[in-house]
Amino acid sequence: MIKANNPKLRSWIKVPENSDFPIQNIPFGIGRFDTSREAVATRIGDSVIDLGQLASKAYLQIDGIDASLLQSNSLNPLLELNKAHWRALRDRLSELFNENNPELRDSEDARLVVYPLKSVEMLMPVRVGDYTDFYASKEHATNVGTMFRSKENALMPNWLHLPVGYHGRASSIVVSGTEIRRPKGQMRPDPEAAPVFGACRLLDFELEMGCIVGAGKALGERITTEEADDYVFGFVLFNDWSARDIQKWEYVPLGPFLGKSFASSISPWIVTLDALLPFRIPPQEREVPILPYLESKGDKAMDINLEVLLGSDSFEPISISKSNYKNMYWSIDQQVAHHTVNGCNLKAGDMLASGTISGTTPDSYGSMLELTWRGSKPLSMPDGSERKFIQDGDTIILRGYAEKDGLRIGFGEVSGKVLPAH
Amino acid sequence: MIKANNPKLRSWIKVPENSDFPIQNIPFGIGRFDTSREAVATRIGDSVIDLGQLASKAYLQIDGIDASLLQSNSLNPLLELNKAHWRALRDRLSELFNENNPELRDSEDARLVVYPLKSVEMLMPVRVGDYTDFYASKEHATNVGTMFRSKENALMPNWLHLPVGYHGRASSIVVSGTEIRRPKGQMRPDPEAAPVFGACRLLDFELEMGCIVGAGKALGERITTEEADDYVFGFVLFNDWSARDIQKWEYVPLGPFLGKSFASSISPWIVTLDALLPFRIPPQEREVPILPYLESKGDKAMDINLEVLLGSDSFEPISISKSNYKNMYWSIDQQVAHHTVNGCNLKAGDMLASGTISGTTPDSYGSMLELTWRGSKPLSMPDGSERKFIQDGDTIILRGYAEKDGLRIGFGEVSGKVLPAH
Repeated sequence: MIKANNPKLRSWIKVPENSDFPIQNIPFGIGRFDTSREAVATRIGDSVIDLGQLASKAYLQIDGIDASLLQSNSLNPLLELNKAHWRALRDRLSELFNENNPELRDSEDARLVVYPLKSVEMLMPVRVGDYTDFYASKEHATNVGTMFRSKENALMPNWLHLPVGYHGRASSIVVSGTEIRRPKGQMRPDPEAAPVFGACRLLDFELEMGCIVGAGKALGERITTEEADDYVFGFVLFNDWSARDIQKWEYVPLGPFLGKSFASSISPWIVTLDALLPFRIPPQEREVPILPYLESKGDKAMDINLEVLLGSDSFEPISISKSNYKNMYWSIDQQVAHHTVNGCNLKAGDMLASGTISGTTPDSYGSMLELTWRGSKPLSMPDGSERKFIQDGDTIILRGYAEKDGLRIGFGEVSGKVLPAH
Repeated sequence: MIKANNPKLRSWIKVPENSDFPIQNIPFGIGRFDTSREAVATRIGDSVIDLGQLASKAYLQIDGIDASLLQSNSLNPLLELNKAHWRALRDRLSELFNENNPELRDSEDARLVVYPLKSVEMLMPVRVGDYTDFYASKEHATNVGTMFRSKENALMPNWLHLPVGYHGRASSIVVSGTEIRRPKGQMRPDPEAAPVFGACRLLDFELEMGCIVGAGKALGERITTEEADDYVFGFVLFNDWSARDIQKWEYVPLGPFLGKSFASSISPWIVTLDALLPFRIPPQEREVPILPYLESKGDKAMDINLEVLLGSDSFEPISISKSNYKNMYWSIDQQVAHHTVNGCNLKAGDMLASGTISGTTPDSYGSMLELTWRGSKPLSMPDGSERKFIQDGDTIILRGYAEKDGLRIGFGEVSGKVLPAH
């Protein structure tokens, strides 16, 4: 077992009941401390720890991890190292904040590096190089296929044979809390008439998980399913905002473009794959044989509870969907192996999103498109209003956590409020 | 007229007849000098000039352009400035290398900054942030549509209404001279049988131009067709290598992915939009009315001659296609305006490729797919062999230049040799 994952560990930092961030989590992010200093951060309970300061005070002397990596305003320099480094850093933090370790606990330095959550602004944790969006939940692909084609032809012929994916826009990935401007664009609501220009009318979210790549591999090389874990630094919650009307008109034959590229939101804390290992489970059964390069070895699916909430100026956020990351037909090792099988290089800081994660029941769908079945079954809101899609002023929140044998490791949330179009 | 574009200017550096690089060009790239020092470079004739050295010797004192920007190993810091800076730098270089200016010509310094072309290794000129590939040549879209559907349904309903584009893989864009490994992947040659895994059999090139974005614009803002020129730093030749068999099986419904992401090649010299302004011409006529946000003001198409050559170990490169950048239905200002109309941010260093540029005649098509009409009309080679697609050991070269009133501004070439699959 990885030392830092020991469920018996307790920290001298107070951790509220049901917190996503016990000492067994130790996620990584970038915080802005004292309104200006930006540095790598971790979180225990409702405290944020400035790892830049901690390193400058020589509490983090780890082979290969220079203090400057932790004083950076992005995680990329740390991600360019390898799993042994990330693990050593996490183990050291686990040790340093262990309730029985007086080293920092009893030092004056503690109050210089431990900040209350509310005093720290969380920033984009990584400079995303390339961003790939997969389409790896069978229920989602089936739902969308059924709506746009028919139940019999819902899944495309390739879907069960490979993890379908496409390139997304990296520059418009923003951190939780960033307001989302409703996009304008070209659409054709009346298929018999000419296209029109205007504000998107069918604004949607997509409930996804985002994987952040570490280490990376050179052009021309591939990463096998067995090796994939070494290139997975960790995960965030990912909201792939979608303008369904823009997307529908533009996407044939080369895929989604402006219907997605106006924004995607991520949660600020990258939860490491190491911290999530206790929650791995067997993957979904294969419905057709797959090619050897895609065969997954061991239990590479993950049991992570996911929830979507919708709030507005006139009511507090209410739950509108509960799903689970286990609703993936293609696991992360299969996504990585497929992505690199042609020699495409992966780089530290790349983002691989899962695609919308929908479960089998209507209350577990991962988008408004599916939840309201294209608007035909509107959701009722506490103020008596209805939602077919997202309205101006609405806030969408995704939450996620894994739980087993009393240990809970979570992501916190990613939140975004929708502003009216310009 | 921009000063540096004056056709009467001559340089004290010798320029061979028919050179792509007279003093009116002044392109920008990144060179490796004396086997180790990397710096911003320009080219006149067959000489490469080290702008890093030139700046350190105080020949380039331009407001806002710190010498360190020119001593960088990428053009990104320079691209993050604006058109006034780029223009001032190009004007200053034009002045410094003018035949009548003794300032550098008669100085000992000249031999320290001017290198023979063969002694300098040209590197990737930019760190590409996001890469977008358009599909903006009507002849290409029609050819591909005719092959895969029918002549009557060749163009998709959206094609004449908007510049169709999609996101590509930025990390695998490489500079001219980089060898290209034939990709492996999943394909389904027999539509009645299961998919298979193996080396791509239908390897292709695509003749494109790549636009490099400068300055950039924030998320939520848009760039109009009128403003677009301010965000276009310049252009390169772009070979969008394509594995047709991998692409065909994977691309429905979300677009090309592994069929393209193994490599794209660019020419090393970014020719500025300023240098290309004399070659602007009226765009192709609109076949249907377009929405106001896409209306192009002024002559924004460009007359640039393009050529594709194929060589192998057993014969010198021969010309297999001659096309022209004017074969674009959607011009760069329309591409930029469309790309940002939803608020998507553009960043300095982003790449916007044109899509395959095909002319109206079969000898002007921009891919093997079209030239051999899916392999049904193989090309004859000098050694008696035939080509339906690209073979191992083949080298593909793209060349391009504009010419008017005796002034020739060119791109040199982008070249890539294909290696057997691993």
